[in-house]
Amino acid sequence: MSDGEAFDFQIDRIISIVKDTGAKAIGLQFPEGFKRRSLGIASRIEDETGVSVSISGNPCFGACDLDVALINDVDILFHFGHAHLDDNKLSRKVYFIETRSAVDVKDVVKLAVPELKGKRIGLITTVQHVHKLEDVASVLKEHGKESVICSGDSKIAYPGQVLGCNFSAARNADCDEYLYIGSGQFHPLGVSLATKKHVLIADPFVNELREADSKKILKQRSVAIAKSLDAEVFGIVVSSKPGQERMQLAEEMKALAKTHGKDAHILTMDLVTPDQLLQFKVDAFVNTACPRLAIDEVGRFNAPMLTPLEFEIVLGEREWEDLHFDEITGE
Amino acid sequence: MSDGEAFDFQIDRIISIVKDTGAKAIGLQFPEGFKRRSLGIASRIEDETGVSVSISGNPCFGACDLDVALINDVDILFHFGHAHLDDNKLSRKVYFIETRSAVDVKDVVKLAVPELKGKRIGLITTVQHVHKLEDVASVLKEHGKESVICSGDSKIAYPGQVLGCNFSAARNADCDEYLYIGSGQFHPLGVSLATKKHVLIADPFVNELREADSKKILKQRSVAIAKSLDAEVFGIVVSSKPGQERMQLAEEMKALAKTHGKDAHILTMDLVTPDQLLQFKVDAFVNTACPRLAIDEVGRFNAPMLTPLEFEIVLGEREWEDLHFDEITGE
Repeated sequence: MSDGEAFDFQIDRIISIVKDTGAKAIGLQFPEGFKRRSLGIASRIEDETGVSVSISGNPCFGACDLDVALINDVDILFHFGHAHLDDNKLSRKVYFIETRSAVDVKDVVKLAVPELKGKRIGLITTVQHVHKLEDVASVLKEHGKESVICSGDSKIAYPGQVLGCNFSAARNADCDEYLYIGSGQFHPLGVSLATKKHVLIADPFVNELREADSKKILKQRSVAIAKSLDAEVFGIVVSSKPGQERMQLAEEMKALAKTHGKDAHILTMDLVTPDQLLQFKVDAFVNTACPRLAIDEVGRFNAPMLTPLEFEIVLGEREWEDLHFDEITGE
Repeated sequence: MSDGEAFDFQIDRIISIVKDTGAKAIGLQFPEGFKRRSLGIASRIEDETGVSVSISGNPCFGACDLDVALINDVDILFHFGHAHLDDNKLSRKVYFIETRSAVDVKDVVKLAVPELKGKRIGLITTVQHVHKLEDVASVLKEHGKESVICSGDSKIAYPGQVLGCNFSAARNADCDEYLYIGSGQFHPLGVSLATKKHVLIADPFVNELREADSKKILKQRSVAIAKSLDAEVFGIVVSSKPGQERMQLAEEMKALAKTHGKDAHILTMDLVTPDQLLQFKVDAFVNTACPRLAIDEVGRFNAPMLTPLEFEIVLGEREWEDLHFDEITGE
């Protein structure tokens, strides 16, 4: 995450909401990169409204990761850095403050033009830059390129937006290749694996281009699968986070294991970390929580960590060629 | 924690409860030291009853630390290693499996006799050994010593039992000194600080005696207080764990800070760790969660971590001589 100064925390809007609703107690929840800004933001809101503010100290990695305990203790939770995910009972008390980035994207797009070989370019990004996709499209148009910005499924708030666990806005785009605006590697890699098309990364913070190269990850995934082929005991990991809980999928995986004569146990927890799984002596884990875990933390667990799709490959229920990123999709 | 083999997991009783209640889904929750036994216990219960078992992978440090999300997903939660804490809505779905230790205590008590100078000895221990306190008393009686085993407040399930955050069973005992049965250091140190009396530790696992020496901890606490005397910005930490949540105390501390012209912010979270507080740039923290945190993790936070009592000393509202361990007391 780059410097918080470049992002819009919408403090005046928050103050208005607090005053208009007459809220007595509010919560503030930030992803790691913004937490250091939290005390100053809390002070300003308290000083101007007199509301009682609590700040969430729990780790936060997405809109899937609402602080349930804090929501129950306050009138309103302001959740920063992520877009609205989907309508559930919890999110009715939540305002999503998307902390859009003010960084200009035109320069890096100009840099990208000569590298784009296709005619129709699918534009994708995270919520911090979705309001800039029209700028991207206009630069491309000036250079004779056609842009496609597609809506995703019900989990996706904005056209062209991708999540680390949902690439539907990319998949829906009828295009020759993709241009991703942002600084991370994970989202464009997911798009590359989900679509099998070329993805060019344009990083507006450092004005640099990179290729989304999925070869290394595919190799790591093959190793995890190969190491699990003889596994007899599986730990099926379920997160209780509201947007990550896939207990039904876990139950299906457990039943599938049993039909193959394998032993499987359901392990539930909030945050999933290598430390917390250390005491569970299994031959392999199957992760139904945040799909990024198996990828980002590869090699850090005490047994191979498979996605549900990879588990199906291990059991011979799916072809190796049919391997892509795990996603948590909507309707 | 010593070898799990020496502890009674009451699996036959659990199987009976599952059959008698007709439970369809159950949860198992273990403290860290017992987690490696969880898969075997789950398999035996599933095989004999057909019930669907989920195992909690969250860290667990006490009966204060019930897995709220798992409770909501199952018919019964079996919580291992801790005694019933107090009656709340949650604990009605919970069976506490106390995992009593079978280890003999008589030999180490015989070893302790010559070291006990007083006439009336207060007997204290954790739940793993409470059923052995009568054995301790009879050995002492044979050697001409009188024993006192007292009930604690409403948080304490058994006479003579102490928690890391509640020494009421010790404080209630009219005695000259204490004999603590167990392997840990923290509980007897708390008793020493709470009562200002001599505490002898008799460890039945290794048959060794130790003294509870509170000097080092008192020195550490003095350093934390001294470092906080000039602090202007405080982070007041609140845990959402059912048995650790002291929001009202936190609000009082925040109000107290304001009357002294200090800035204070309430930080809420589930598990409190040095990593999670790293991003909050305060001059000192005040911990209203598990009282052990400030002691066990001393020096690992990015600012001094005070107990509420120590915070009062910093603000000049309490005398240094009036320093003891923070406790979460009952009625």
